[in-house]
Amino acid sequence: MDRKAPIGVFDSGVGGLTVAREIMRQIPNEKIIYFGDTARVPYGSKSKETVTRFSKQIVRFLQTFDVKTIVVACNTASAYALDELEKEIDIPIIGVVKPGAKVAAKTTQNGRIGVIATEATIGSQIYSKYIKELNKDVTIYGKPCPLFVPLVEEGLWQDPVTDEIAKRYLTELVDIDIDTLILGCTHYPLIRSTLGKIMGDGVTLVNPAYETARELKELLIEKELLNEEAPKLGENQYQFFVSDGAEKFKRFANSIIKYGILSAKTINIEQY
Amino acid sequence: MDRKAPIGVFDSGVGGLTVAREIMRQIPNEKIIYFGDTARVPYGSKSKETVTRFSKQIVRFLQTFDVKTIVVACNTASAYALDELEKEIDIPIIGVVKPGAKVAAKTTQNGRIGVIATEATIGSQIYSKYIKELNKDVTIYGKPCPLFVPLVEEGLWQDPVTDEIAKRYLTELVDIDIDTLILGCTHYPLIRSTLGKIMGDGVTLVNPAYETARELKELLIEKELLNEEAPKLGENQYQFFVSDGAEKFKRFANSIIKYGILSAKTINIEQY
Repeated sequence: MDRKAPIGVFDSGVGGLTVAREIMRQIPNEKIIYFGDTARVPYGSKSKETVTRFSKQIVRFLQTFDVKTIVVACNTASAYALDELEKEIDIPIIGVVKPGAKVAAKTTQNGRIGVIATEATIGSQIYSKYIKELNKDVTIYGKPCPLFVPLVEEGLWQDPVTDEIAKRYLTELVDIDIDTLILGCTHYPLIRSTLGKIMGDGVTLVNPAYETARELKELLIEKELLNEEAPKLGENQYQFFVSDGAEKFKRFANSIIKYGILSAKTINIEQY
Repeated sequence: MDRKAPIGVFDSGVGGLTVAREIMRQIPNEKIIYFGDTARVPYGSKSKETVTRFSKQIVRFLQTFDVKTIVVACNTASAYALDELEKEIDIPIIGVVKPGAKVAAKTTQNGRIGVIATEATIGSQIYSKYIKELNKDVTIYGKPCPLFVPLVEEGLWQDPVTDEIAKRYLTELVDIDIDTLILGCTHYPLIRSTLGKIMGDGVTLVNPAYETARELKELLIEKELLNEEAPKLGENQYQFFVSDGAEKFKRFANSIIKYGILSAKTINIEQY
């Protein structure tokens, strides 16, 4: 396997860019092929079978670039499809759930952890499962927050409506006195300040994007796959592909990632 | 063509059920094959190319039932794909946009019509185009309302948050004194009372679902395709198919349609 090969990163749409951003920051020599499934977004309200089928198509697409590893930068796809994907490919593949679960299990003092995520991720109980494997004395409270994704995508990152919806979703987590809250959907770090205000200073917010980039770095070091050379001048280090609306994606991406995304290309993912 | 053949009705998801409901009410002898593209919903934020490709797959699926006509019960698909679909098939096909435009053009007294719909439908300017063909002295004001669909799907049909968002979207339409408002997305009739309260008594709300069912009936009479026999006892008059989450669809459908939907079946639409 080639150290200089790119890393494949995928998400149902734009949310996974918060993960890509962390990878760019923590391991700046790496090349990234990013795919956002904007034609079929969102995943969080869809079934395991469908999300798994979509994810398999995307992995096949990423493999056409001879990626050295794949990051499933979507909580729903990590929850539903990671096991199946691991069976299909022989390169390392990591999701965002396990790294997030690990740091939450380490962080909690009072043994009460909240998870906010899509209906799919909460329904899968995957965060619970991973956290319990690490520490069986912890209690996990899951809360689906289906309106956060459309609110973030509409740009209402700081808005009274988002405050009101967040209060409705989070009040029960405040009441049961959790001390750690996992932001279990890649869109949620974008409304982190709203969430933090409601939860209060006593609650640590865990962003799996950060932890995933850290684990990815460790994995690449362990497998001797870390790219030790900075990209050459003029080299196209970051490539973005979507299944729909490349221009719209580019605009959104440029509001999240400060590296200046010059191009995004639309492909027909159903062909893979 | 067989009078007893079913009518094909499709939408990006559950919204088109408001159209199916009107068809059931106005022409109760007809059989219906309904398809909701729940694996790829929503359409309203996606591109013309993608929505057209999806719509073609669905039309091919519906034709496997030898449908006598097809109703595109989705404003976005009507706006983007109807012309292309007409070229591909030799049975009558109608969308929801033209019937809605026709009644709005007839209804307005002061020549000022508002249209609320998805970004895609507003961007296509299709309501404007059809209304201008009927009455060139009318002015049309389009306003995309992207949060209405997720709010409706979350069941917040009567809720302060929906009121607040609706006020933001509609205030400019109130200010410019329209007298007619087209509900240009099949989800919107479900929050009709909220919209009516904000617009006030002087504004007529046009529901294209109602007009579409009326035009469908006229079309079937004209083509001598109206089914004149009531369905036999025990006959499966209404069949529902989706691309994902049949159980969830059934629950939502039963909250809209009072005929008691007994079953919905998931199929892989990408194979068509």
